[in-house]
Amino acid sequence: MEAIKRLKALLKEIYIINSSVSLMHWDQSTYIPSKGAETRAEALGYLSTLAFKKLTSPEMGELLETLSSQNLLNSLSNIDTALLRVVKRDYEKAKAIPPELYEKFVIASSRGQNAWEKAKREDDFGYFRPYLEEIIKLLREMVEFYGYEKDPYDALLDNFEPGMTTERLQHIIAELKPEIINFVRTLSKLPAIDTSFLNGRFARHLQSRLSKMALKVIGYDFDAGRLDETVHPFTITIGPGDVRVTTGYKPSDFTASLYGTIHEGGHALYEQGISPELKWTPLADGASMGIHESQSRLMENIIGKSYEFLSFFYPKIQKAFPKVLENVSLDMFYKAVNKVEPSLIRIEADEVTYNLHIMLRFELEKALINKELEVKDLPEAWNEKMKEFLGIVPPNDTMGVLQDVHWGSGMIGYFPSYMLGNLYAAQFFNTAVSEIPDLHQQIAAGEISNLLQWLREKIHKHGRVYEPDELCKRVTGEELSPRYFIDYIKSKFGKIYGL
Amino acid sequence: MEAIKRLKALLKEIYIINSSVSLMHWDQSTYIPSKGAETRAEALGYLSTLAFKKLTSPEMGELLETLSSQNLLNSLSNIDTALLRVVKRDYEKAKAIPPELYEKFVIASSRGQNAWEKAKREDDFGYFRPYLEEIIKLLREMVEFYGYEKDPYDALLDNFEPGMTTERLQHIIAELKPEIINFVRTLSKLPAIDTSFLNGRFARHLQSRLSKMALKVIGYDFDAGRLDETVHPFTITIGPGDVRVTTGYKPSDFTASLYGTIHEGGHALYEQGISPELKWTPLADGASMGIHESQSRLMENIIGKSYEFLSFFYPKIQKAFPKVLENVSLDMFYKAVNKVEPSLIRIEADEVTYNLHIMLRFELEKALINKELEVKDLPEAWNEKMKEFLGIVPPNDTMGVLQDVHWGSGMIGYFPSYMLGNLYAAQFFNTAVSEIPDLHQQIAAGEISNLLQWLREKIHKHGRVYEPDELCKRVTGEELSPRYFIDYIKSKFGKIYGL
Repeated sequence: MEAIKRLKALLKEIYIINSSVSLMHWDQSTYIPSKGAETRAEALGYLSTLAFKKLTSPEMGELLETLSSQNLLNSLSNIDTALLRVVKRDYEKAKAIPPELYEKFVIASSRGQNAWEKAKREDDFGYFRPYLEEIIKLLREMVEFYGYEKDPYDALLDNFEPGMTTERLQHIIAELKPEIINFVRTLSKLPAIDTSFLNGRFARHLQSRLSKMALKVIGYDFDAGRLDETVHPFTITIGPGDVRVTTGYKPSDFTASLYGTIHEGGHALYEQGISPELKWTPLADGASMGIHESQSRLMENIIGKSYEFLSFFYPKIQKAFPKVLENVSLDMFYKAVNKVEPSLIRIEADEVTYNLHIMLRFELEKALINKELEVKDLPEAWNEKMKEFLGIVPPNDTMGVLQDVHWGSGMIGYFPSYMLGNLYAAQFFNTAVSEIPDLHQQIAAGEISNLLQWLREKIHKHGRVYEPDELCKRVTGEELSPRYFIDYIKSKFGKIYGL
Repeated sequence: MEAIKRLKALLKEIYIINSSVSLMHWDQSTYIPSKGAETRAEALGYLSTLAFKKLTSPEMGELLETLSSQNLLNSLSNIDTALLRVVKRDYEKAKAIPPELYEKFVIASSRGQNAWEKAKREDDFGYFRPYLEEIIKLLREMVEFYGYEKDPYDALLDNFEPGMTTERLQHIIAELKPEIINFVRTLSKLPAIDTSFLNGRFARHLQSRLSKMALKVIGYDFDAGRLDETVHPFTITIGPGDVRVTTGYKPSDFTASLYGTIHEGGHALYEQGISPELKWTPLADGASMGIHESQSRLMENIIGKSYEFLSFFYPKIQKAFPKVLENVSLDMFYKAVNKVEPSLIRIEADEVTYNLHIMLRFELEKALINKELEVKDLPEAWNEKMKEFLGIVPPNDTMGVLQDVHWGSGMIGYFPSYMLGNLYAAQFFNTAVSEIPDLHQQIAAGEISNLLQWLREKIHKHGRVYEPDELCKRVTGEELSPRYFIDYIKSKFGKIYGL
């Protein structure tokens, strides 16, 4: 047991260094003065590398070897067994890539992100192309080091969603895609929903007050976090008892900050709910990106954009902006925030069309990694798929293939998490409804605590103890299925559109 | 030259780790949520220890040894020579104390501070006594390890003011004390100055605006820092280009936040003015605590409470609080903020009596370290000296021996820095007046930039390159003398009191 103690001490060191990195990141997006920002990257680089070095140190290797001997494994608690599993996983992933290759990739990702920013601003894919080519070239090398069973792309997918494979994802998509495409076609023939009244001028301090109110309603603990303003909303855990949320305020559209905040609030509830038992260890994190996203999408969409929640919360919104919303009924507002319409930009997409944006990206990035597509042909492939999936074609690359930061910064294999999050959310909520009596009525009364209690017990408190698959089975009794999402979408939007 | 490169790389690592510690400290005083604060100390402890371990590492020892060989020293630049001097100093100080003793001291200091807080709150010196006894006992051991020429107390003094000795301090005090005591006696026979109009209710946002305005006037660069609210004001450097100031707002007294901010602004100007050449090294710091304090006291008192500065700035103050200050003339305000009166609390003391509070503490802490006084006799000794120096005796220990945090947190040898700061400030300013034509008129026009330029060139940009003594000689042509302070005080307050 001496070894497990030493392992935990080493993990705590890594946790604390990462915690200082998180605080620097948060500070960099919120309060850092401009001249301080110039050298912050160097500090961040050093501290991140320090944590990485400790994770891949010979000491870590020896501890893991000692602890992996069979007779020891049987004497470990469930949590310690899980701890060993995730540390081994993280260690092996980190050790899999030769340091020189990894360094090349870090540099290429950093350059790629800068190039992407310029290319997007100037609508110039040609400028971005060589940077993305370098990233794809390196990732094609890296997947060989990570290893995979069937598809090279599996290796990247597994970085974000442990256990998920390309094959399984394709099965899910095969079931989901035609349903969504058909449903969108049906809805697009019906009269459009009016959203014009959502435009106006909305004072920042009123938006901020509304965002805080929404966070309180969903159960976010302000004694263990805070809300600040940034350009792009995010959630970041600084340390135990310190999970911070940020949001951005658009003067012309308060729904962006409101739903952005509720989305991040969902992520934050997950991290605030992780058991204190897992403190200072890598288990104190989400089970996967998909599971994490399920918590944010559940709060943002399934709760936040439900008729029940809005019947409680819309009067508060109306009170915050009485002039603009004076003549807007709950019904009008509910429909407006749930308008379905094929659109060009993923992050602005509605619940129904959103997954189509993800499928498109998944198919393209899989083809890039599996050498079925080259970067030079990417814009054309993007536009073709937009036409096929959503029936529209972007007028330029800025609103098309250049819209997202992910690829330029080396994040390939991440996009499917967003879709998985939507599917997990619907499946989890389906179980919650059956296990919590009167849940819909509770939500309509602004009473989220029973749902939160349920989420804490079933999902949040376990952190990374269970892999996504096992967690899904424990919560819902079966593995992930797109059926629940399809049913949810058809039922909700069928009613909204009077089908 | 390979060794100097490696040294700088190692120093940069230490700098960055310390930088993460600073950010955590700043965050802890400003924005941390309460539940996050519970575990912050552990993170701070780990990271501070990590920096300490790197400073005292065998690698550091070897590098210093290599670099100390005579033939190399001659080939080093001035800055690298200074760098080597301060790193050797810091290394040797850190290595001087056996780790077990140092750890005991860190624990005793932490417990001592907690005990002090309770004892002060409850006016219970008896409760505090054993904690302080432990600290004094450990410090008496530690000074033997640090080493000293004459007085054991020298070893502690040198931690904060390199080169300063007990003997020299006593000479300075011998010259200063009777002058001040006599001058205070003279002033106390004159009619008291009215300050009643300074009381009122001052909205926080107006105080904050005024504080920011004052920082801008003295030349603080908001692109390389920021102002936030904390209980106690402080200045902290997070990293290159990032020097932050905090202040506290008393609803009933805006002069506390205003002068607190200008004081911290003086510290911040020093750190903002350090040459970028010294970036990431321990040279990017103040020459000593005394020199640092000279910059804050110069801005707070010699500039901020001067008639010239107020003739420019008071109209702005009046505009901020028109109702309270409507009938208060510049003359009345100037006199009010410069009222001289023996008082019990150091941090509220005026410019004339302030140093008496320091002399008292110096004599007591010196006696404690030199085994001429025991902790049990401290309250009585305190009260006797208060009677002797200031003519008043505190009604309780909370307003007497328990008022300051320093001793309980192990900071012994620090207090003299405050007095030295006052003396350096007067001596520096005396030179500035002779070297900058029309300085008084410039200040009266709110034009501080020439003075700041002068301070930058003479003091700020050098950071720790020169020891306090050498710096003082370079700036003023002679070593520190209390004469300038005495002249300044007599001239300024003689006029105010119509002598």
